[in-house]
Amino acid sequence: MRNRYNMHPTLSKRTDWAARQKIGYLMQQGVDHPDCLSLAAGLVDYGSLPAGITQTALEHVFKSDKGAQAALQYGTTAGARQLRKLLVDYLAQLENSTVDELQVSDENCLITTGSQQFLDLATQAILNPGDICLVTAPTYFVYLSTLEACGVETVSVECDDQGIIPASLDRTLEQLAASGDLTRVKMLYLVTYFDNPRGITLPTDRRVEVLEILAKWEARQFIYLLEDAAYRELWFDEPPPPSCYALAKNKQQVMVSHTFSKSLAPGLRTGWSIVPDALIKPITDLKSVHDFGSPHVAQILIADMLQTGAYAEHVAMLRRTYKAKADALFQGMQQELNDLDHFHVTRPDGGLYLWLTVPEDSGLDTRGDGILFDRCVGEEQVMYVAGELFYSDRNHPEAHRTMRLSFGVQPEENLQEGARRLVNAIQACIPQT
Amino acid sequence: MRNRYNMHPTLSKRTDWAARQKIGYLMQQGVDHPDCLSLAAGLVDYGSLPAGITQTALEHVFKSDKGAQAALQYGTTAGARQLRKLLVDYLAQLENSTVDELQVSDENCLITTGSQQFLDLATQAILNPGDICLVTAPTYFVYLSTLEACGVETVSVECDDQGIIPASLDRTLEQLAASGDLTRVKMLYLVTYFDNPRGITLPTDRRVEVLEILAKWEARQFIYLLEDAAYRELWFDEPPPPSCYALAKNKQQVMVSHTFSKSLAPGLRTGWSIVPDALIKPITDLKSVHDFGSPHVAQILIADMLQTGAYAEHVAMLRRTYKAKADALFQGMQQELNDLDHFHVTRPDGGLYLWLTVPEDSGLDTRGDGILFDRCVGEEQVMYVAGELFYSDRNHPEAHRTMRLSFGVQPEENLQEGARRLVNAIQACIPQT
Repeated sequence: MRNRYNMHPTLSKRTDWAARQKIGYLMQQGVDHPDCLSLAAGLVDYGSLPAGITQTALEHVFKSDKGAQAALQYGTTAGARQLRKLLVDYLAQLENSTVDELQVSDENCLITTGSQQFLDLATQAILNPGDICLVTAPTYFVYLSTLEACGVETVSVECDDQGIIPASLDRTLEQLAASGDLTRVKMLYLVTYFDNPRGITLPTDRRVEVLEILAKWEARQFIYLLEDAAYRELWFDEPPPPSCYALAKNKQQVMVSHTFSKSLAPGLRTGWSIVPDALIKPITDLKSVHDFGSPHVAQILIADMLQTGAYAEHVAMLRRTYKAKADALFQGMQQELNDLDHFHVTRPDGGLYLWLTVPEDSGLDTRGDGILFDRCVGEEQVMYVAGELFYSDRNHPEAHRTMRLSFGVQPEENLQEGARRLVNAIQACIPQT
Repeated sequence: MRNRYNMHPTLSKRTDWAARQKIGYLMQQGVDHPDCLSLAAGLVDYGSLPAGITQTALEHVFKSDKGAQAALQYGTTAGARQLRKLLVDYLAQLENSTVDELQVSDENCLITTGSQQFLDLATQAILNPGDICLVTAPTYFVYLSTLEACGVETVSVECDDQGIIPASLDRTLEQLAASGDLTRVKMLYLVTYFDNPRGITLPTDRRVEVLEILAKWEARQFIYLLEDAAYRELWFDEPPPPSCYALAKNKQQVMVSHTFSKSLAPGLRTGWSIVPDALIKPITDLKSVHDFGSPHVAQILIADMLQTGAYAEHVAMLRRTYKAKADALFQGMQQELNDLDHFHVTRPDGGLYLWLTVPEDSGLDTRGDGILFDRCVGEEQVMYVAGELFYSDRNHPEAHRTMRLSFGVQPEENLQEGARRLVNAIQACIPQT
């Protein structure tokens, strides 16, 4: 072994870091248990994928050879200007604001291969190996792997049922300052809307407090906020609060990322992010090294759908679809858990996920190597994602008593059945006292 | 300044490394001189972009909602199985061999966002910052930037008019061994077909010799060969030799990358590579961290074009188009250079480039900050890429007396005019003695 990182003598440290990712484990679970009713996969509703409107957009783009050839040519690394202009206007609309108030132009908008590529690029741009990124406990587990693949350390900030606790952020920074680690802290990562895994949206007052804390610490350490707004558009009853980006007095400190993977089609692999002026060139340079730019055809199609209003209609339809599915799974869980005390399921206002917490004194262990998980994928043929994946510290007290339940993939009629199977397994695994 | 790499205190080393890339410089030249007749841009022929066959493939894929929705869903990180199966068969066909003889299965085939993403992933997987990659002088300048962005050092191996000189490779390795640097050498990068920048194809005997040298050194240092076959399919009169991958006795040492950006459409951003078994997981893990997979829709379209034969017909048409354009530019240069002795232009058998070498004693300097370049983009309104960009060592004796001329973008009728303008500028800049 050449060094403590590198398990394969001819490969790089980065491959060893990347090998620790957890999404592969999760996908393998799906492969190993193909007959399970999966409440695990974080994918979108199959029947709602936009076959019709994509075809219409294709007809628009391909109706002339000139239009077709423009779409088939290289775009620019940062993305098609036409789409970026539409997206800053769309952002203003989401924020119920204007591009001027938001201090944003199409130059600040970068198109990536899904928002995942943006998360990776931003991480590579801002953090060196050994630097620290603050995350919530729990947080989006794929991003934990992205950080790990960049050799970045994570430090968790506590959450409650409204999301990150601002006082805990402040306290964490105090502790890092006391231990001499503050200069390594470069970024805070937050999923601010219907988060993955818990389905929770951070309230406006907390957003403001978080920004104030970052501003307060800025004199000692400049810390970027990376706001992941992947699920923002998938609200059920009313639009969620403005983004941290919109609320920030100092726009130079905040990036906000979005994706068309949830609200339109993952197969188009198109994400869009707003970055501060100082990060435009560094992130575009890195993207240029990675791939020269994301697929142009998909960008031109999406621009067409934004212009015709087809996208807005599609998202409105998705909201109704996911609301009905969220209700079905939530009500199913409530009903099945009826005679079990102190089990808690979040009722989301949007997104794709519920979060189940089992009581501390239940004796249940939700982890992937425990008897509950075995019972689920074995006898009951139902699958969940173990909560432990979402904690950078696997010893976090909630890591072994939580699980994420997704209502994205399963058709509505399967969700009640999924709840039934899951609670059957839970009841079978509660130790008899 | 926090360290010797990092110019921006809040950003990573990688952004500083990536900022040194040269493609941005080249694109800026295009922006700064929009009225120039560009023989610089390495882009493809606009009129040949496959509007018709793409539309037909779209009709096939989108004719059922089920087909459309499958294309719009996430694929897998490594790429659509259907396409990877077709591509290993296609490779066998290119090699005039079989998948068994080639010891390749669809598992060895990875789909990336253009071949650029593969070059970046392979580099990140194999080399740590401070490691060494061997390259030719000259070589594909974008890849030099990719290496730099990964913090990798380059060491150049000499070329002649047939490509890399095997004896020089051996000598270079001897020197690196003598200086104690051999253990840092992880990879050799070669563009083996109609190379960028010179349009030269490495002959079979040299391919075999290079592989033998790597095999000979393997006992002391395992060195991967990264074979870039981006232009392989664009031959004019007869198919080029087998790849190094096909010729290699030890397939575990060679990767070969291809792209649909040159032979089909850059806007689809789809590349495909063959990797040894030991690299499948590390590279797929890294790609998973980057973006979860390249756009699925483009992959399904390309699979359709491979199956219907539309792709083969398109490439056959492109061969005729580029052959005519290569002839036009080559003949134009020959004619215009008629009364100038010792100027040398390569006559390519495929690809998109000619390479002009001006005589050592001509007093001409081809570099981007010289009077010749100024005269070209000023008075004569023609642009080339300065040879210096293609040398990792800017002091290489040929770096200031070479240039790359591309016949990709300009319509045939402009190429003679481009040659005329270029030689006008040359004649005006030759010092009067």
